[in-house]
Amino acid sequence: MNVTDIIDHLGTFAFAVSGIRMASARNFDWFGAYVIGLVTAIGGGTTRDILLNVTPFWMQEPSYLLVTGLALLATLLFNEKIYRLQKTLFLFDTIGLGLFVVVGIEKSFGAGFPVWVCILMGTITGSVGGVIRDVLINEIPLLFRRDIYALACVAGGLVFFGCQYLALSTAVTSILAALSVILVRLAAVKYHIQLPTLKSDISNK
Amino acid sequence: MNVTDIIDHLGTFAFAVSGIRMASARNFDWFGAYVIGLVTAIGGGTTRDILLNVTPFWMQEPSYLLVTGLALLATLLFNEKIYRLQKTLFLFDTIGLGLFVVVGIEKSFGAGFPVWVCILMGTITGSVGGVIRDVLINEIPLLFRRDIYALACVAGGLVFFGCQYLALSTAVTSILAALSVILVRLAAVKYHIQLPTLKSDISNK
Amino acid sequence: MNVTDIIDHLGTFAFAVSGIRMASARNFDWFGAYVIGLVTAIGGGTTRDILLNVTPFWMQEPSYLLVTGLALLATLLFNEKIYRLQKTLFLFDTIGLGLFVVVGIEKSFGAGFPVWVCILMGTITGSVGGVIRDVLINEIPLLFRRDIYALACVAGGLVFFGCQYLALSTAVTSILAALSVILVRLAAVKYHIQLPTLKSDISNK
Repeated sequence: MNVTDIIDHLGTFAFAVSGIRMASARNFDWFGAYVIGLVTAIGGGTTRDILLNVTPFWMQEPSYLLVTGLALLATLLFNEKIYRLQKTLFLFDTIGLGLFVVVGIEKSFGAGFPVWVCILMGTITGSVGGVIRDVLINEIPLLFRRDIYALACVAGGLVFFGCQYLALSTAVTSILAALSVILVRLAAVKYHIQLPTLKSDISNK
Repeated sequence: MNVTDIIDHLGTFAFAVSGIRMASARNFDWFGAYVIGLVTAIGGGTTRDILLNVTPFWMQEPSYLLVTGLALLATLLFNEKIYRLQKTLFLFDTIGLGLFVVVGIEKSFGAGFPVWVCILMGTITGSVGGVIRDVLINEIPLLFRRDIYALACVAGGLVFFGCQYLALSTAVTSILAALSVILVRLAAVKYHIQLPTLKSDISNK
Repeated sequence: MNVTDIIDHLGTFAFAVSGIRMASARNFDWFGAYVIGLVTAIGGGTTRDILLNVTPFWMQEPSYLLVTGLALLATLLFNEKIYRLQKTLFLFDTIGLGLFVVVGIEKSFGAGFPVWVCILMGTITGSVGGVIRDVLINEIPLLFRRDIYALACVAGGLVFFGCQYLALSTAVTSILAALSVILVRLAAVKYHIQLPTLKSDISNK
């Protein structure tokens, strides 16, 4: 278990907790909450793997299901305290996002896809889990209205291939790309940076 | 056409009718009702096959589309009577569930996946069709709040591999696993067994 | 770039604009609107390719993402004027539909699937993008209640294989099939042809 694995599982934990807490706000039962947590954590990577036409990553390694179980247990036991840990969880979530994006890019690049597909796959890895979660709890995905969550993923992808163009080492490239995702996301949240909305006088039905 | 095929198609019929009746409660047109019925019946197995990276089962055998057509026809012709047959349909539905779970497990096991993946695939085969149905009719999936539907599938999976561990024959293993799903489901409905819900004072947004 | 490519991209443009305008009616931000436009345009073909177990078409050719970007730009710049162009867009949309259906059929037939699968895949190519769009904006898919949109796709598929049975040339077959989709769709909209709805006194739930 190396550093990447640890970050990967911390990120999974944070993503799962975010899903479980949304489910608990809607009085889902334990099983429903577990599924929402799991889908939030693995939905992005699963979508990526289906598009890349490979076996989804969590079918080769049971730890993602176990970590989601731990996230459920933690929410059940320490609900109040987890609430107080909100900032820590946000940090895990953001660090996890950075790593997920890099993992998505590297996996797609290793499969021989062009740069623009890899950036897209990194973004999908980081953001589609939350979209599926929102569809399942019957809400319009936050992604479409919120701060520049997905654009942080795209920024990380651009930095990744910028570093590669400069022939930096794989480790440095990965770290700088993940850091870019994390910093853009943190800055967007801190300074309430948002994209303009499309306003329209036109009701189209 | 052997016993398995007959049960498979009765289950498909019952799943399809359940979807069509939900669609008709929302005044969908015939085509919409057909699609909802079809998705309810084949959505779980399709998700499983996509995750297993094989061609979906219904693309190799048109009978699932025909059975769904029959389900639509039956609902159009005998709407009242089908209502009175509710108990029979519930039975078909539950027997179908038992079979779907076993089929899902066997197909995944045959593809070389480990036990925990197979149990998960059995559960997905049995329950994801209803989830997609609920997403399409714009409701929060019943699965996340209802009786222990999905856990009946998991129970069947555990029995399946318990029997296999005991080196029972394939036929006995399949029958006992399917029976477990059916009995757990029937008991859960009869005695209103439910999982606890996650309650939360925390509104998270 | 031949005639097929031009129609393909005009259709993509029209599908994307329809998604972007729905997103703008809900005050999505630019990114959200782009994603909804993209999903509307490529969702059907992506679903088809996943079911056929091949790499999604847009991962091999960036022009679909660019055309969606142009659609967003055009909506931002000429919102009012695009409104006035509604009839032109409807025409693009319908011509695009005709082509998408034929492309879906041909791709599935080339992959060796039987006729009924190909007709289904043509229909999926033409209509699933709109379904995913509606799920993401949290509405019951129009497809299930509207005019005979999907049946126009099925009609095109029947004509396709009718022509093939008559041993007409590939070009003539494609053109006649696409024209059938277009004409059935135009006729259905003009004369308000709709399928009957399934009415039900039975509340099931």
